[in-house]
Amino acid sequence: MTDTTTLVIILVEPQLGRNIGSVARAMLNFGLTRLRLVRPRDGWPNPEAAPSAAGAEQILQEVEVFSTTQDAMADLNRVFATSARPHDMIKSVYTPHMALEHLAETAHQNQKVGVLFGGERCGLCSEDVALCEALIKIPSNAAFPSLNIAHAVALIAYEWAIQVAPTPSQVFRIGHTSLATRAELGQFFAHLEASLDKSGFLRHPNKRPTMVRNLRNIFQRAHLTEQEIRTLRGVITSLTTEVGRG
Amino acid sequence: MTDTTTLVIILVEPQLGRNIGSVARAMLNFGLTRLRLVRPRDGWPNPEAAPSAAGAEQILQEVEVFSTTQDAMADLNRVFATSARPHDMIKSVYTPHMALEHLAETAHQNQKVGVLFGGERCGLCSEDVALCEALIKIPSNAAFPSLNIAHAVALIAYEWAIQVAPTPSQVFRIGHTSLATRAELGQFFAHLEASLDKSGFLRHPNKRPTMVRNLRNIFQRAHLTEQEIRTLRGVITSLTTEVGRG
Repeated sequence: MTDTTTLVIILVEPQLGRNIGSVARAMLNFGLTRLRLVRPRDGWPNPEAAPSAAGAEQILQEVEVFSTTQDAMADLNRVFATSARPHDMIKSVYTPHMALEHLAETAHQNQKVGVLFGGERCGLCSEDVALCEALIKIPSNAAFPSLNIAHAVALIAYEWAIQVAPTPSQVFRIGHTSLATRAELGQFFAHLEASLDKSGFLRHPNKRPTMVRNLRNIFQRAHLTEQEIRTLRGVITSLTTEVGRG
Repeated sequence: MTDTTTLVIILVEPQLGRNIGSVARAMLNFGLTRLRLVRPRDGWPNPEAAPSAAGAEQILQEVEVFSTTQDAMADLNRVFATSARPHDMIKSVYTPHMALEHLAETAHQNQKVGVLFGGERCGLCSEDVALCEALIKIPSNAAFPSLNIAHAVALIAYEWAIQVAPTPSQVFRIGHTSLATRAELGQFFAHLEASLDKSGFLRHPNKRPTMVRNLRNIFQRAHLTEQEIRTLRGVITSLTTEVGRG
């Protein structure tokens, strides 16, 4: 990804400086830096923005201010609007995930993309929505749909980050150690089962196969490392020695 | 989904009442209601929480407070911890999307599930992480990874909402009207092309097929409704009448 491949965030008539700072923080958390404001209620710069930016002040310093929504998106090739309301318009409505998949794909083709957010009081007006290609509807609770503007920007920026830097759904973090080999696991099972044969836990021959299988499954699910195998074998040795003393 | 199928949000040592209120708002935005606090710095109840809850005060009134993390999760069957730091532990690390897929699936089997969040100052300590089955890593900017706690809760609650109430990736909203039939679209093309033949726009026979195809594709992409077809035909009629006057 080059520097030009980014998503522009446009806030129309934002009210509270604190929220604008919080938007900047959420943007930088997910690698976004370009923030534009249309007619901010309290003017710009706004000293109330920096504290909630919590380290993202650079974004505030580079904010661009516009007097119309049209001007704020003039150089962009593709802009979607976030809105919880239907606006009675004939338009595509995307989930955040699908919208950002489209926008990231478009940005990847060296097109400039952006997302438009309405202010705290009543969101985007229909005229602003009509300037955009499509709507993004955040799947919120119908009985309590109004998100804080910084929360809404955080979700969109998060979905952008997923598109531009995909990560595996699950990583099993093993640090500097190594997973046990199947042989080490087998030796552990042999140690455990021999100890349990001796202690009488597996004394019923008809139940033994099921009990052994259940025990093995517990430890299969634990994805043991070689160090953990050594630890568990130490535990068995310690417990059997303890029993011997009793 | 029944009332018991929910996700419990646990905040460990949260500091600012304002953030706790903001967490409550984000939770209710995505249909979550059960909030637990472990050792809130400024005690509980905290009068600074309600303003930022912005309508989600009911959640604040039903907050449960605990003195240990262990107690806060005692009745839960499955708990994941959110953390940006690796904690040098041998543990699975999930994306928010995959983590919530697992937790929603578990909740669907009538198991109680929760997610643990650390406080504003330094997140979760390793002892708290060790009480949890796995980690959730929000894919944030490595150079600026620390999310506001309410933003983090909003993302997790959003991913929960996606699991429990999936919505189509794209809906083409047509309101009370109907999409044009293929016949109506064909009549529109015939009207447009006859007018352009007459005006001379399509006068080069070797270019005509390509020009016609390109024009048709523009309007194919627009997913026109029957009302919009009538509007566009009115536009053509109006323009050709205007030309006639000239």
